[in-house]
Amino acid sequence: MRADAAPAFVWAAELGRIGERLRLAEQESRYVARVCRARIGESVTLTDGRGGLARARIESVHRLVEVVIESVDHVSPTRRAEVLCGPLESERGDWLVEKLAELGVAAFQPIHCERARWPPSDRLPRWSRLTRAALQQSRGRFEMDVRAPLWLEEAVDAIPDGTRNHVADPGGEPAGRMGRVPLGACAVVVGPAEGLARAELERLIARGFLPMSLSGARLRAETAALVWAAWWAAPLEVSESMGGS
Amino acid sequence: MRADAAPAFVWAAELGRIGERLRLAEQESRYVARVCRARIGESVTLTDGRGGLARARIESVHRLVEVVIESVDHVSPTRRAEVLCGPLESERGDWLVEKLAELGVAAFQPIHCERARWPPSDRLPRWSRLTRAALQQSRGRFEMDVRAPLWLEEAVDAIPDGTRNHVADPGGEPAGRMGRVPLGACAVVVGPAEGLARAELERLIARGFLPMSLSGARLRAETAALVWAAWWAAPLEVSESMGGS
Repeated sequence: MRADAAPAFVWAAELGRIGERLRLAEQESRYVARVCRARIGESVTLTDGRGGLARARIESVHRLVEVVIESVDHVSPTRRAEVLCGPLESERGDWLVEKLAELGVAAFQPIHCERARWPPSDRLPRWSRLTRAALQQSRGRFEMDVRAPLWLEEAVDAIPDGTRNHVADPGGEPAGRMGRVPLGACAVVVGPAEGLARAELERLIARGFLPMSLSGARLRAETAALVWAAWWAAPLEVSESMGGS
Repeated sequence: MRADAAPAFVWAAELGRIGERLRLAEQESRYVARVCRARIGESVTLTDGRGGLARARIESVHRLVEVVIESVDHVSPTRRAEVLCGPLESERGDWLVEKLAELGVAAFQPIHCERARWPPSDRLPRWSRLTRAALQQSRGRFEMDVRAPLWLEEAVDAIPDGTRNHVADPGGEPAGRMGRVPLGACAVVVGPAEGLARAELERLIARGFLPMSLSGARLRAETAALVWAAWWAAPLEVSESMGGS
């Protein structure tokens, strides 16, 4: 373990109140005791993935880890990003889910498009595990919401009002000329490998989606989605110390 | 196959001159004939991965594909990016190589660092295959150079003069405030999961490397490298039609 390692950072369903004794679930107990090798008396940082963060001290590592809450606070997200993405081969989807979660994207919405649909196989449990692991890895406060596929139009209808919407399009506005990343809520539609149908793209534009060119090169769908998230996640402020460190 | 598919795009060791008849290598022949299902009389676009691009017509698909060159041109790169990256687990390395190649990065240089070294196993042949596939997928003119690991200091010594150098550092200049991406040559050092040692970071800064914060979240090494490449690849101009399409 590195000398300057931060305390273990782990998800908990509820954070409780100061002085409260909590028992971590089985998987999280294993992570804290076996992977992080935390011991009795050491600090651990907990998040509920909904904006809450607690500092706690380990009281027991007997089968399940028990902690006492020492401090706790809750914040609301100041920015929000949602990625609507056409079908990907399975491993590419897994990889994208992990990376979007690491970058702090709020929601991943798979979309069926005219030219390609997600297969019926259910990746959601796997994606949820990857998302949880990425939350802990990146020491974030907000867990990404991974959703079941919807048709493009339904998914667009579900985007909250006031969201700044983009659509990945090689002929669109060059990302490098768009200036600062907008604050508030943003979303992007990334079509499948086969591309969006012209009518789909036109309907999005008619609804106010800004076509955005993400690279001078032709990108795979998952790469385009990741590049958009990287653009969105570019920090504007010097970083504060993050949860637990 | 989609209706608006561009001609097959494939690598060739040499592009020849107009009117010349070329035989593609075995792997590229298979790609053109079996994967792209191109037929005699159809167009194909060739690149040598060194800035050359040719349009050719298929004359034979008997075992090896034979083409006649119809036009050819060569360009020099106007921008150049190099990524120096600390050790990654094998699949994460494969994934990063593919993504950097898609984004048009010129060179991937694995680096041994004080806190972590690349294992001796040789991923280079695999990385070369991934790079070649990404070149074709992204219809690029420049194939990424994937290199054998060097120690950080050796790798830094090998960066060409005049390159704008960055080092990924959560405490650095926020990427979202850095304004337009520099033209010309850029490079980045991304440390291992364990982080760069303080002395390594200080030596880089003393040599003019700008510490750069790539996300408000804590990123895995391969994610940081990809986010930097996405930042670098953000287009400044409205895209021209790309090779062959």
